[in-house]
Amino acid sequence: MENNVSSDLRDLIYERIKKHYHTRIAYLGPEGSFTHEVVMTLFQGECVSCNSISQVFKLVSSESVDYGVVPLENSLEGIVNETIDNFFEYHDVNITQCVEMRIKLCLACPDDVEKVEDIEKIYTHPHAYAQARSYLTRFKNVDIILTSSTAKALEHVKKTSKACAIASKRGALMRGLKIIEENIEDKPSYTRFVILSKKSSKTGNKTSIIFTVENKPGSLYNALEPFSRNRINLSMIYSRPTRTKPWEYYFYMDLEANLEDVACVKAINEFKSRVSFMRILGSYSIIKLET
Amino acid sequence: MENNVSSDLRDLIYERIKKHYHTRIAYLGPEGSFTHEVVMTLFQGECVSCNSISQVFKLVSSESVDYGVVPLENSLEGIVNETIDNFFEYHDVNITQCVEMRIKLCLACPDDVEKVEDIEKIYTHPHAYAQARSYLTRFKNVDIILTSSTAKALEHVKKTSKACAIASKRGALMRGLKIIEENIEDKPSYTRFVILSKKSSKTGNKTSIIFTVENKPGSLYNALEPFSRNRINLSMIYSRPTRTKPWEYYFYMDLEANLEDVACVKAINEFKSRVSFMRILGSYSIIKLET
Repeated sequence: MENNVSSDLRDLIYERIKKHYHTRIAYLGPEGSFTHEVVMTLFQGECVSCNSISQVFKLVSSESVDYGVVPLENSLEGIVNETIDNFFEYHDVNITQCVEMRIKLCLACPDDVEKVEDIEKIYTHPHAYAQARSYLTRFKNVDIILTSSTAKALEHVKKTSKACAIASKRGALMRGLKIIEENIEDKPSYTRFVILSKKSSKTGNKTSIIFTVENKPGSLYNALEPFSRNRINLSMIYSRPTRTKPWEYYFYMDLEANLEDVACVKAINEFKSRVSFMRILGSYSIIKLET
Repeated sequence: MENNVSSDLRDLIYERIKKHYHTRIAYLGPEGSFTHEVVMTLFQGECVSCNSISQVFKLVSSESVDYGVVPLENSLEGIVNETIDNFFEYHDVNITQCVEMRIKLCLACPDDVEKVEDIEKIYTHPHAYAQARSYLTRFKNVDIILTSSTAKALEHVKKTSKACAIASKRGALMRGLKIIEENIEDKPSYTRFVILSKKSSKTGNKTSIIFTVENKPGSLYNALEPFSRNRINLSMIYSRPTRTKPWEYYFYMDLEANLEDVACVKAINEFKSRVSFMRILGSYSIIKLET
């Protein structure tokens, strides 16, 4: 559905976002994270680095910032659970825009590493590790240390000799590290980031909803029926533990429709009467960032 | 549905599993992991510690072992993606039994730590960290280092002064570490482990299936219709990236039914004609381990 966003419209969206000079934007940090890269490309305002996704939601919910930016989904690794769990917790935080970016990984190290053979330790985030798994098989007897973000991996490497990080090029250069190899990921992967806001958005052809149903035969199926009858495609559905009672789930789903489409209005009205809880996160478009 | 497993039947299952003296069992290691604890309680045979979930699947698929044991789902953290992704990759590995265990976490450290205030570094797995998040807020200015398993955290701590690990009591005691605090998890959490085998199982009231549908309006809904019509409850459904094309998904679902129930046979036959790919992982029961 991202093809529906013409390049003119995309420029317009860029424009609209960029002009917010006085906005405050919270993002999943630290500085130089992939999320930060998205923020720097789209916004001109005051950036607030957060050390967790929850903290970004908290700042948006309390209106301490105008927008928040967090990763939602990666094309190889799937949904970022912490992000959708926070939508279930913060009922006043919505999605206004989705931004897709290719994740390029490099091997970054301090000056004492001259060649790949000098490396004794590799720091990285579990997702980046998974994405460069084949490339990494060439390293024998090297310790792999997992960190909570690729940017944290860069921080560690700055203080450690004979070490390298798998992280973004921009983050590495920001910290004065040198790049030993680029584009080391096994196959291209893309991450979708969402721009969060207290305001609800109704533009764009993708709609995200979270909901719960009673745990009895047919209740999930019955809840989805209005979308099928109104020919609205359900592109993904995802169960997550409610965390209140073991083995009870809530659902996150993506529809290929706009909230104000006549068919969508009808379907959602019926859907509402068939679920025990629902919340619409917004209708929004997906723009692709060239990096 | 686990209540359907009477304690007599559970004893029988224990018995059946325990008598395999000459079996080889691969499990997600290292020694002292929660998975290892499950293996030691259920099996008497040769245990093979693996350093990844994929490796357990590989050994089961190649018949190098008789059984494999891996975590499938935690009641707070949700599905273990690596496990279900491997079912999509290894088409000859099935589920024969599910085992539920309460996850109890402790703070373990070497002898140089006398009291909680001495701790400068905490090693643990991201899930264990998430499960003890509130408890951990009492530690200020302490480095949190994330490891690929709680057992790896214990290994690190053995070699590090003024450090502690969040891990299982059994794993800590096996390594001669001392326990500073027990049951530090914020709320009870349970993990379900699955016993993998090349043979397909048809006993028990839970059935797991993976499948794909065409990406067009109503195809997912249409595929699920036979289960609703035959009054079979769909307790969870979960999308994962196919990893072949960005933003295409396969689905994992749990049914509350046995594969040989008349209604289930009928529903699956119809379901089969409505999906582009499907594989039944097995019908099995859930037994609860007391620890």
